[in-house]
Amino acid sequence: MAGEVRYKNIGLRGVTVADTKISYIDGENGVLIYRGFRIEDLAEKSTFPETAWMLLHGPLPSSGELRRFEEQLRAERVLPPFVLQSLKLWPKESDPMDVLQASVPMLAMADPDLRDESRDANVRKAIRLIARIPALMAAWHRIRQELDPVPPNDDLPHAANFLWQLTGLKPDEDAARDLDVCLILHADHTFNASTFACREVVSTQAHMYAGVAAGVGALSGSLHGGANARVMEMLFQVEKTVRSEDEVGDWVRGRLDAGEKIMGMGHAVYKTVDPRSKVLKQMSRRLSQKTGCEHWYRLLTRIEEEGLREFEKRGKSNIKPNVDFYSGSVYYLIGIPVDLMTPVFAMSRIAGWCAHILEEKFAEAQGKPALYRPQAEYVGDYCGPVGCVYQPREKR
Amino acid sequence: MAGEVRYKNIGLRGVTVADTKISYIDGENGVLIYRGFRIEDLAEKSTFPETAWMLLHGPLPSSGELRRFEEQLRAERVLPPFVLQSLKLWPKESDPMDVLQASVPMLAMADPDLRDESRDANVRKAIRLIARIPALMAAWHRIRQELDPVPPNDDLPHAANFLWQLTGLKPDEDAARDLDVCLILHADHTFNASTFACREVVSTQAHMYAGVAAGVGALSGSLHGGANARVMEMLFQVEKTVRSEDEVGDWVRGRLDAGEKIMGMGHAVYKTVDPRSKVLKQMSRRLSQKTGCEHWYRLLTRIEEEGLREFEKRGKSNIKPNVDFYSGSVYYLIGIPVDLMTPVFAMSRIAGWCAHILEEKFAEAQGKPALYRPQAEYVGDYCGPVGCVYQPREKR
Repeated sequence: MAGEVRYKNIGLRGVTVADTKISYIDGENGVLIYRGFRIEDLAEKSTFPETAWMLLHGPLPSSGELRRFEEQLRAERVLPPFVLQSLKLWPKESDPMDVLQASVPMLAMADPDLRDESRDANVRKAIRLIARIPALMAAWHRIRQELDPVPPNDDLPHAANFLWQLTGLKPDEDAARDLDVCLILHADHTFNASTFACREVVSTQAHMYAGVAAGVGALSGSLHGGANARVMEMLFQVEKTVRSEDEVGDWVRGRLDAGEKIMGMGHAVYKTVDPRSKVLKQMSRRLSQKTGCEHWYRLLTRIEEEGLREFEKRGKSNIKPNVDFYSGSVYYLIGIPVDLMTPVFAMSRIAGWCAHILEEKFAEAQGKPALYRPQAEYVGDYCGPVGCVYQPREKR
Repeated sequence: MAGEVRYKNIGLRGVTVADTKISYIDGENGVLIYRGFRIEDLAEKSTFPETAWMLLHGPLPSSGELRRFEEQLRAERVLPPFVLQSLKLWPKESDPMDVLQASVPMLAMADPDLRDESRDANVRKAIRLIARIPALMAAWHRIRQELDPVPPNDDLPHAANFLWQLTGLKPDEDAARDLDVCLILHADHTFNASTFACREVVSTQAHMYAGVAAGVGALSGSLHGGANARVMEMLFQVEKTVRSEDEVGDWVRGRLDAGEKIMGMGHAVYKTVDPRSKVLKQMSRRLSQKTGCEHWYRLLTRIEEEGLREFEKRGKSNIKPNVDFYSGSVYYLIGIPVDLMTPVFAMSRIAGWCAHILEEKFAEAQGKPALYRPQAEYVGDYCGPVGCVYQPREKR
């Protein structure tokens, strides 16, 4: 019957589909772990390249392994010329996520290891993807402004080089470190919709790029990676609507009364504060003070407070800020345009996607069927095994 | 524990994730139904445009609805110039499935309805995709041979026009009808891996093109749409290996003894003969006789017979020919190159993908969570809620 859930697997919530050694979420207690390490610890002490290496390989890298990996990332930043030439032909107003989804299979065409399905070859593909997605998005941002793409700068590490290629300016060291921390925070999150799309696609023995392009598609959805940009749109709207911060409470109540969501609050898995949002909130406060743009941070914290109070009143006290709530303001204050916020999410999550693709492709044999192929319940026309009567066209 | 299946949802086999009105498979009895009609009936009486309209909308179209749909398909066959210009820049040896996956998001950039999420706008996107994927693949085949793309021919219906754009020659009417029947046969198959990838991606509220690009990625895998080309590769190998057809039995046994599969035999859902393979077998026989290439048909039937006998002996009597077993030979005899066989599958399945995306986007409310997000069991390092100790780089 329509309007009723008749089976329990809908949306696959709570349906365990595989083992993983990559990450773990304790949604009740707000804990996120990558390869055994708490996200807060990694945000404080690690770097994105180190975290990416660990996601791909398991343990923390030795100094030598990390140095080698950083060198490989640097070497692979250069985009194939036919990719840049193609970007120049595309409509300038294209959504950067469409540009990214189109570009990933083009990077496949340029990969000398494409048909090599060994683990080592797949790790090389992962390194190319991690190195090239930022270069691609920076190049697109230049090209759409009718500017020349900026070549990579060999003196700069991963996150700083992205800001360099985006703007052509040497980035502020703090901004580069903040972006690097954001990349750590978004790098993996178990079987989220985009990661599951990657795994699902490669379970057919498709290559890594085919899976990653699917992940990009899933991430583009406003219920997934698209949410950070929607928090910013909400913030612009609040800014225009309220005359003083004291009106934020009315705005929040009005929105909830109208059955609308507060963007960036609530999560499918966390029933308490998302641990990533705590790190991002501190970063947002610091950046706001530093740049003198404290207005937004005050608005955001006010929306958070009023939102928490209202959700509590409405019996939804498990709706708390998620990773997207403060990340938009952080990106904005670092200088990242609103429509590049989801691509920045992709620049980070690519590490997790590739780690999960490796895990899917090289899982220890578990008697696992070859590919993900669920069932659906047929509720359409059915005229028995002989089928309905096909009426000739002229009689319809 | 590795090596052991500890939960029952692996590969999602038998896990019901949604209602569908689009198609139904009775795997025990070898029945496939689209919207109430048996596939054999549609193969005999329908056309691909009519079947596609029905998959999208539900009932069979009236004459007027069908005429209008065919006109729309004709009108939308023209590719955006920037897409053709980009294709000309790409490496000529690229895999056509990578070309297709890269091109689908480029078609998104050219769609005036991209941000309109109404049902009508989504149907228009579906029409554009159904019309343009064949045009794209034909253009790529021309371009990679350093030939000019052939503009569409307004006098020709859907399948015939593809052959025209591929070769620049007016196709034989029987060949065009055979291809049209192949497109009917492959147009939908419930929640197969590529269709599920499409639905999974748009469940995040991503647009239709983002979902279709994921479907293309999944279809490219050799366990899914890539299988028809692998049957042809197997056939070329048998042709080279056996001195007479009497040696086919030894070849089959040798292959199975070595733990290898017979490509095109066995299916995740069918436990008897795939009803599509019966239609394709007849078509393969007819085309073989007509073209004088009876050799392959004889080899294929011999592989089928010997395979069935061997599987029976080995207690695997449910392994029978699937849709891919005879389709490769049919495509080859129609004149389709081996590496365009999976793209031809996509030209057909695009109808089902779009129908499923519409169903996912506009399902009657069932209290369905917004997106597919399964669980994984974490079996990696875990040092308790405080996490493992992060050793500084210099101490590792």
